[in-house]
Amino acid sequence: MRRITETVGKIKPIDTKVLEETQRRLDSLTKPRGSLGRLEELAKIVVAITGRKNPTLDRKVVFTMVGDHGVAREGVSVFPQEVTLQMVYNFLQGGAAINVLARGVGAKVLVIDMGVVSEIKMSKELINKKVACGTQNMMKGSAMTRCQAVQSIRGGIEIFEEEATTSGIDIAGIGDMGIANTTPSSAIVACITGSRVQDVTGRGTGIDDDRLKRKIEVIEKALKINQPDPRDPIDILSKVGGFEIGGLVGCILAAAAHRVPIVMDGFISTASALIACEFCPPLKDYLIAAHRSQEKGHQIALDYMDKTALLDLNMRLGEGTGAVVGMKLVELGVKILNEMATFEEARVSREEETSIP
Amino acid sequence: MRRITETVGKIKPIDTKVLEETQRRLDSLTKPRGSLGRLEELAKIVVAITGRKNPTLDRKVVFTMVGDHGVAREGVSVFPQEVTLQMVYNFLQGGAAINVLARGVGAKVLVIDMGVVSEIKMSKELINKKVACGTQNMMKGSAMTRCQAVQSIRGGIEIFEEEATTSGIDIAGIGDMGIANTTPSSAIVACITGSRVQDVTGRGTGIDDDRLKRKIEVIEKALKINQPDPRDPIDILSKVGGFEIGGLVGCILAAAAHRVPIVMDGFISTASALIACEFCPPLKDYLIAAHRSQEKGHQIALDYMDKTALLDLNMRLGEGTGAVVGMKLVELGVKILNEMATFEEARVSREEETSIP
Repeated sequence: MRRITETVGKIKPIDTKVLEETQRRLDSLTKPRGSLGRLEELAKIVVAITGRKNPTLDRKVVFTMVGDHGVAREGVSVFPQEVTLQMVYNFLQGGAAINVLARGVGAKVLVIDMGVVSEIKMSKELINKKVACGTQNMMKGSAMTRCQAVQSIRGGIEIFEEEATTSGIDIAGIGDMGIANTTPSSAIVACITGSRVQDVTGRGTGIDDDRLKRKIEVIEKALKINQPDPRDPIDILSKVGGFEIGGLVGCILAAAAHRVPIVMDGFISTASALIACEFCPPLKDYLIAAHRSQEKGHQIALDYMDKTALLDLNMRLGEGTGAVVGMKLVELGVKILNEMATFEEARVSREEETSIP
Repeated sequence: MRRITETVGKIKPIDTKVLEETQRRLDSLTKPRGSLGRLEELAKIVVAITGRKNPTLDRKVVFTMVGDHGVAREGVSVFPQEVTLQMVYNFLQGGAAINVLARGVGAKVLVIDMGVVSEIKMSKELINKKVACGTQNMMKGSAMTRCQAVQSIRGGIEIFEEEATTSGIDIAGIGDMGIANTTPSSAIVACITGSRVQDVTGRGTGIDDDRLKRKIEVIEKALKINQPDPRDPIDILSKVGGFEIGGLVGCILAAAAHRVPIVMDGFISTASALIACEFCPPLKDYLIAAHRSQEKGHQIALDYMDKTALLDLNMRLGEGTGAVVGMKLVELGVKILNEMATFEEARVSREEETSIP
């Protein structure tokens, strides 16, 4: 627990004073004021987060954390549980969507086993932080022990810090894989935002009406049996969370402690961010919402955090796929600040103050 | 005129038969069906446009066409007219927003003088297709002669075809620069879509209420005096258009004739696309809407073309800035199709057909 407390203790509110100063710098560049819209916002927030006047985002890293879920046996997904393991191998071979999109934007993918059911043949590409072989079925009791919840968060912190120390991280994306993991995520979002389960429970990988009804019942039962305390993030994580979710929470805490911007992916990573913010509300300003997922409940989670997604491309895949696309937009925003000529440099006339002729 | 007629004659309806087949291929990849949303749509449309099963979009080119407008002297912009020329030099030196964003996504910028008021010191980087030194004031008569309108379109065709022949173009973005050019664009959109001028006239680079009122009056007067025929694209272009708008029309026609996808930027490039579609309605399917501009009237133009923008980032700069960001998304969509592993290749289990346990 000490590692978590120390990390949280390092998180400082972002320096909002530089926002206005950075806007003035953006206004000195050869374009009508504010005409690059949200790209300008992104440049400003990255300056405020990093404390660097001209931050560069060359080292883009997406953390794809993987875990299995005991609740999968309740039939809440269209895919069988072994797909989690199969997808890990797919990630390691570079054939999954996250690999393709990350290559397309120049981001590095880290694949982390936080708690896959099966043992994974060791590969030097895989980071092993396995807490246990899958969580317990949250419909019948706690998904994990409090101790395991702490261990999963600590694992996430360690992974971030090791990568930051050895290779450096300018911006972090967070992603997930784990068959059935929209189920714990809906439970988390319902618990923290106080929403009705039916309002935050969607079709995940594509379940039909019958399974959706079942999924809602499962989540309602899990919340009723476990009674997670909405203001105790470790209680929520242990009772209705998942190991990959805990890993993402740790990663988010560590990134904020290191003043690194964090780009959220879809529903699962946003649920993780909600837990992370319960440790430390000012953390919220380090988070950028990449896209609006098709998964029902994502918008509710984003609204609760006062975040407007950059993209709305009807995506609902996870893995960090939305996050890496969003990271590219953040990078473009920062490039505007760093690379554009000013009116003076380019000898371009400014807006006229004269009246209509 | 023959060059235009020949080019239009080469434009064929896109091959919609391949859309379904490509969706089947996308569904064989290791992800839940349809879970990459609009990225999948983009992959499909590029296959249909290019006729290539696995198109690559390495050669991304944005055409930034520049022209001046006689109507600028009516005080419809906050920037003085000399900014058009100054920005050309800024483009050539690589300091403008379009240069920065194009570098950021790996696109090449072609800068074309279609009709800047001043003579531009020749630079090997600048493409000279000057029709005349700025258009006439459309509030007092035709912006250009019918012959000049034809010449501007032909210029755009020539530029596209020269670049396609010498370097190759996999995907084209269209952009513009020209102080006051939202004014002719609003006139074009009002004329073609049948909208009221006040509904399609916005603040451009940032005019205040007084200038906006004036701008609306100017456009209404221009339409009244000139009476452009909404079904005669050359009539519209010559009466209330601009040289850079004509150049973009030519570029769009040539791209479609060469089966190259065209990514529209904001209001001016969409107005150009509306004119191009009047020559050849099936051309519409070659066009991709990159972003929803803040400029009032852009949404009306997009709705008229049945297009949904990929991005909504509150941008309103022009130059092709939105187009290059959109091109990156198209490229990512195509990479998904080309690079992801199938369920069979990765040995990942597919959706279960079994019922709830």
